[in-house]
Amino acid sequence: MADLDAVYFDIDDTLCATGGFALRARRNAVRAMIEAGLRADEELVWNELVEVIAEFSSNYEHHYDKLLLRLPPEALEGVNRVLVVAAGVAAYHDTKFRELTPYPGAAELLRDLSAAGVRVGVITHGWTMKQAEKLVRLGLTRWLDHDAVFISDQIGIAKPNPKLYLAALRAHGIAPGRAMYVGDNPVNDIAPPKRLGMRTALARLRQRPADDVAALPESHRPDHVVTSYAELRALLRDVYGVPLPASGA
Amino acid sequence: MADLDAVYFDIDDTLCATGGFALRARRNAVRAMIEAGLRADEELVWNELVEVIAEFSSNYEHHYDKLLLRLPPEALEGVNRVLVVAAGVAAYHDTKFRELTPYPGAAELLRDLSAAGVRVGVITHGWTMKQAEKLVRLGLTRWLDHDAVFISDQIGIAKPNPKLYLAALRAHGIAPGRAMYVGDNPVNDIAPPKRLGMRTALARLRQRPADDVAALPESHRPDHVVTSYAELRALLRDVYGVPLPASGA
Repeated sequence: MADLDAVYFDIDDTLCATGGFALRARRNAVRAMIEAGLRADEELVWNELVEVIAEFSSNYEHHYDKLLLRLPPEALEGVNRVLVVAAGVAAYHDTKFRELTPYPGAAELLRDLSAAGVRVGVITHGWTMKQAEKLVRLGLTRWLDHDAVFISDQIGIAKPNPKLYLAALRAHGIAPGRAMYVGDNPVNDIAPPKRLGMRTALARLRQRPADDVAALPESHRPDHVVTSYAELRALLRDVYGVPLPASGA
Repeated sequence: MADLDAVYFDIDDTLCATGGFALRARRNAVRAMIEAGLRADEELVWNELVEVIAEFSSNYEHHYDKLLLRLPPEALEGVNRVLVVAAGVAAYHDTKFRELTPYPGAAELLRDLSAAGVRVGVITHGWTMKQAEKLVRLGLTRWLDHDAVFISDQIGIAKPNPKLYLAALRAHGIAPGRAMYVGDNPVNDIAPPKRLGMRTALARLRQRPADDVAALPESHRPDHVVTSYAELRALLRDVYGVPLPASGA
């Protein structure tokens, strides 16, 4: 019998490469705004946008409005602000939706876990509709039960509060020690479920040095680090005894 | 010399076929929600959605949430509401953006009017970002001056209030008698500019009977009815003396 009853996943940079495409989408937005008439150097606009996102959070709804407020007045001379913002928004969304795909092997692992009788869920931080639309566009909803998605905005509990993870365990009647969480951020995705006694896997699917894990405080150190879905599959199969095929083909 | 200094256009069902694609986009949204697990007959869901839109206006932001509230409880048994709504939203937007193109000849006429020294503008009812994004996606912004777009939500004046039209004329310093408005709705697009003394053209670009124009009260009767951009071009050239090429090739 498998040692796990449930595996929960983060979305961003865990099921899909959000970080990378968000950067490209914003870069395309800046270019589209300049094409739409904004009179400023691309790097200047880009640097302001990076600051706006850092200051107002990536989930803020009016990045481009704020961006225009911060640019020198000559950048907006003879410019229709509304059309410039709309050009940025359209380019951002087009890039995002075009590029949104699951990491290789992610969909297959969800499918095979589900077939193996292991509960598959998503516990994610963000706005309800934004996160739900990502799951729809990733094509992953068919592997998720109707009560398997926990979005902080929907639940009213934000990461890193462990209560968000507890809400999922309680809804499914699963003991913490028989559930694993897979996420990319030690503070938000490892420390809270670990505190509850859940198993944890740090997803290092983007190009990042893996050697900083040893430097994490014990409370933030994951049980496992995986750099691909093939590795995660092997871990679940070989270490936790989940009856999965060796490959997700 | 031309008898017109400016031509203003409505967006929806005048520059592009909004009505038709909105219907198709909503139909695809209903299908996607059923695919995402909604347990109800397509026609039942469709009829409820049509009622929601009639009751809450087409610009309301939460059609699908309201729709789910109205369906019988068994339709939602074992269903993740959030994922169903997200599936509907994604299908709606995908259809809308895929199908959004200007009516044949519209872009060319804007270009040629602009080249002929006639001011081209847009006066439209709706939400600022939604209408601005349509213009961006239609590819028409290059023919529009930076101060040529008047959106009711942005100006704070809604159709059929003639003040919305007056705001454009004042901004451009143009006498009403030397400006034409082209729109598809006698109440919103003909009566108000006519009251100001503007020239009016009723755009009948969708398949609709044209014979009801004679039945309109004098206050709502347009100076002209056009059923294509070729007709509008000929009208502006031959009747108003605007120096336009005979065709928009």
